[in-house]
Amino acid sequence: MARPATTSESDVPIAVLPATQYSWQMRYDVAPSDREAVRTLVDRTGFFHGDEIDIAVELVDARLTNGVASGYEFVFADSPEALAGYACYGAIPCTAASFDLYWIAVDPHFQRQGLGRMLLEDVERQVAAKGGERIYIDTSGRDQYRRTRAFYERSGFCCEARLKDFYAPGDDRVIYVKNLVKTC
Amino acid sequence: MARPATTSESDVPIAVLPATQYSWQMRYDVAPSDREAVRTLVDRTGFFHGDEIDIAVELVDARLTNGVASGYEFVFADSPEALAGYACYGAIPCTAASFDLYWIAVDPHFQRQGLGRMLLEDVERQVAAKGGERIYIDTSGRDQYRRTRAFYERSGFCCEARLKDFYAPGDDRVIYVKNLVKTC
Repeated sequence: MARPATTSESDVPIAVLPATQYSWQMRYDVAPSDREAVRTLVDRTGFFHGDEIDIAVELVDARLTNGVASGYEFVFADSPEALAGYACYGAIPCTAASFDLYWIAVDPHFQRQGLGRMLLEDVERQVAAKGGERIYIDTSGRDQYRRTRAFYERSGFCCEARLKDFYAPGDDRVIYVKNLVKTC
Repeated sequence: MARPATTSESDVPIAVLPATQYSWQMRYDVAPSDREAVRTLVDRTGFFHGDEIDIAVELVDARLTNGVASGYEFVFADSPEALAGYACYGAIPCTAASFDLYWIAVDPHFQRQGLGRMLLEDVERQVAAKGGERIYIDTSGRDQYRRTRAFYERSGFCCEARLKDFYAPGDDRVIYVKNLVKTC
């Protein structure tokens, strides 16, 4: 997979994707229409409960209302028809250089085309550009999330902790981390 | 230490403390004056950085602005002169029965009198009354927090995970949990 080029005009790398190669375009600003686009996408994955979907939309709202001060940054992958995928991340308050990847989701129509990996790599580049040294991802220990966990592991994330029954009985919270300055 | 009595008039136990035994009185509602009372108390402990103190006050603000919907619940211990100690906790979104203890702090003048333990036990009773099954506490792995960690361990909390360098290089995040329905 080709890595998107970056510009020197900003402290945040901007993806410049060849339109002939991918059917999506990366975007970093947040528009009011992203509320419904995110709700639709997250719902279409079939992975999330209603209250989880509400929280995904709340993060968009927080960014629209409070801007950068919200602590939420976004990477959107727009296709001509709809939102193909997105990621939401941010610096963890009261830490020197730790970031959280809050959400990453790809529309079923665009899965298995490398978009998840591309969103994740884009987040990693931006975190590094902001001085971040490690990225945490929380996910579920349930079987349904096996492919998700394998994806994080293939992408260089290490399982650092497992909190038993955190989400519900039999549903552990698994905490992954990727150290951007040294291998973990 | 005597356990505070409870009333049957509410789903949340109300502490009724004999004024002759303790120099503080438990309170569960939040007043605008708690913004500065919490800032003063947290600052007086000498334990927290400026950005951590700001966050302690933001949780009070969130509760004052959004009420129960903020997700933040408080236990205050008022002395006649000032706030002697307080705890802030809440249900963790998207979990079935997990709660977080966000803050617990005791003014230096009131330390070593059992108030920390009393606040923690009060939180445990209220979490149980709300259907919570486990309480998580995050703290630092630094030497400065050794007494804090020993306090949680004496109170029945178990160290479930340690995230290396989470807060800063050499400053790990230690995650404690207490299972309210079975021992961990």
